[in-house]
This record gives sequence, structure tokens and C-alpha cells, in this order.
Amino acid sequence: MIAEKQYRDKQKKTLQYFKKAGIVITEKEKKNIEVADFGLGELAETGLELLVYVNTDRVCAKELVLFPRQTCPEHRHPPVGNKTGKEETFRCRWGKVYLYVPGKKTPDPKAKPPKGKENCYTVWHEIELNPGDQYTLHPGTLHWFQAGNKGAIVSEFSTKSVDEADVFTDPKIQRITKLKKEHHEKERH
Amino acid sequence: MIAEKQYRDKQKKTLQYFKKAGIVITEKEKKNIEVADFGLGELAETGLELLVYVNTDRVCAKELVLFPRQTCPEHRHPPVGNKTGKEETFRCRWGKVYLYVPGKKTPDPKAKPPKGKENCYTVWHEIELNPGDQYTLHPGTLHWFQAGNKGAIVSEFSTKSVDEADVFTDPKIQRITKLKKEHHEKERH
Repeated sequence: MIAEKQYRDKQKKTLQYFKKAGIVITEKEKKNIEVADFGLGELAETGLELLVYVNTDRVCAKELVLFPRQTCPEHRHPPVGNKTGKEETFRCRWGKVYLYVPGKKTPDPKAKPPKGKENCYTVWHEIELNPGDQYTLHPGTLHWFQAGNKGAIVSEFSTKSVDEADVFTDPKIQRITKLKKEHHEKERH
Repeated sequence: MIAEKQYRDKQKKTLQYFKKAGIVITEKEKKNIEVADFGLGELAETGLELLVYVNTDRVCAKELVLFPRQTCPEHRHPPVGNKTGKEETFRCRWGKVYLYVPGKKTPDPKAKPPKGKENCYTVWHEIELNPGDQYTLHPGTLHWFQAGNKGAIVSEFSTKSVDEADVFTDPKIQRITKLKKEHHEKERH
């Protein structure tokens, strides 16, 4: 659950990242920036800001923004119906991101899971992505990622995105963001 | 056919566009920028510069660069084997691009086909794309596009790209670029 005001504030913050990186988006897109807290209510630690450019039956493209040290929690994309799971390529555009996938555990990894959530992070092969670097994930691959100290912007090129089908290691996670509507009293002068 | 020196020069020019737009690419990618003259040998009029980020069996992402008033000639993406043709979304990142698709002819279109090639341009419904604007083409749709006076950078998000399967309206076009190797005499002092 995320309060509407916080949601709008974080949309604006995301826009600042796009501006810094020279990424132009339309007025309509500005309102469509998604702020995902994964239902944990700790957005600074576990969260992701994203703008979906296109998501057809065959192709999806998004920009992802992570604030400094913000973590997109461990998950995988399973088959949906009779379709193979989502294949995705992450391309770092700005900042730095640490991506973790199955494989040999990296000694002294640069990212730490959010406190108290350590048991929900099980893959530890580290891939450091700087601007211009990219990595392609095959369907079903467990992964998580965290921005460096300045935050990060990552372009995602993939097959169709079906967020509600994502399988997270942390059973408490709810991928679809719930907005807490606030009642504003009108001020009287 | 394009001379090797011209090819390298245009790669460098393409890189300047990426720099202006804040798009970071790796050293390896700099060498992989493709300069396509479509076999016509008139690159300033008919041509396209492109960098393929990823092209798997399911997903493709590229950056396209057009120099001022450069035209990507009319073509469509037919089915390949048992696969539906390529679906593609063009997103303008920098500059301006005029995209033409089937539909009601736009009066006073902003782009003109390269001289002497007018009969190879048959679709005239104009879509003007400025930074942040995008348009999705369904498989098999005839289309062509031309940059405005400053040139353009366009991100393309699509299904698998099989350039050699593209069908061009102009029968003289050869999509796969042929490089003319030059023999350099070593200067003796």
C-alpha cells in the first residue's frame, strides 16, 4: 500500500532521473509512471519506478528507474498459459546497477538485500552493469537487482510483460501496487 | 556498395548523434554501428545508420540514426518461415522523423522521396514523431520514413529482425550492405 501523495512525489522524482539522462517522455507518460512498492511499504529499500512504452502480445519495452540502493526483489517469469516465460534484456542507461542471477556466488557482493529480507535472496552471481552494458535473461531465471549509490536507469527489452504472473521468492510480496486514496479537506479561508 | 572510408566516417558521425542525445554505447558497439546504403550508393538521400542492441529469436531492440533528410526507403516485413512478420514500434528520441504508412494521403506531406525514386513510394499517410512520440506497426505494413532538417534518433522495439527478408518497393534495393575494401599504398618518405 502506498499513499497517493508519496506516489505522486516519487513519480516526480523519477521524472528528474529521466531529465538527467536526456530521456524525453510525453505529458501523458509522466502521469503513467508506475511506482511499485511490491506491497511491502518500504519503497526506499524495496521498490521500482517504471514507464511502459509498449506492451503488445509479442513485444514489451520499458524504462526502469531505481533510486540509490533501491532493490527490485528476487523473482522469475514463469510460462503464462501455453506461452514460454518472459525473456528480458536489461540495458543500463545511466548510473549503475548490480544484477544477481544463478551461478557461482560472487565473493563480497556489492549489494546487500534489504534488512530482515536476507532469506528471500537466493541467487548471488553478480553482474555489474554500467551505462552501455546489458544482460539478457532467459525465461524462468531467478534474478534481483539493486542500484548503486547514485541510482540507475535501465531499459528493458522483452517479450510480453504479465507482471501479475511474476513469482517472487518473498511470499509477502504483492506485485500490483495498491494506492491508498487520501481525503483532502478543502481549506477554508 | 559503400567505400570503407566513408563507412568509418559515417560510423563516427552516428556516434556524434548518440553523444548529443546522451545515449551511451560500448567501445565494441561503436565498431558495430551499421551504415546501410541499401545498395543504391546515395547514402545522403537513401540510408540508415543503426546499432542493434539485442536480436534473439523473440525480441529485437535497436537505435536508428537518420542524418538530416535521410530516408529509409519503403518496405514491409513479411512472414519468415512459419513466423508472423516483424512487429515494430518506433520511438523518437531526438530530432524529428516523418513516418509514412497506408491510409488517407496527407495533403502537403513534409517529406519528399529521393529524386528519381518517386514511383517507389506508395504510402502517404504521415505521422510526425517528435521526442517521446512513438508508433507501432503491425506485421506486413508498408512504411518509409525520413528525418527532419536536424536528423533523428529513433529507438526500435520489435520481434526478431531478419533484415534480409525485408521486401522493398524499389527492386534495385539490396538491404545487406556491401563494403568496398580499399588498398592503401604505404607512403614512403
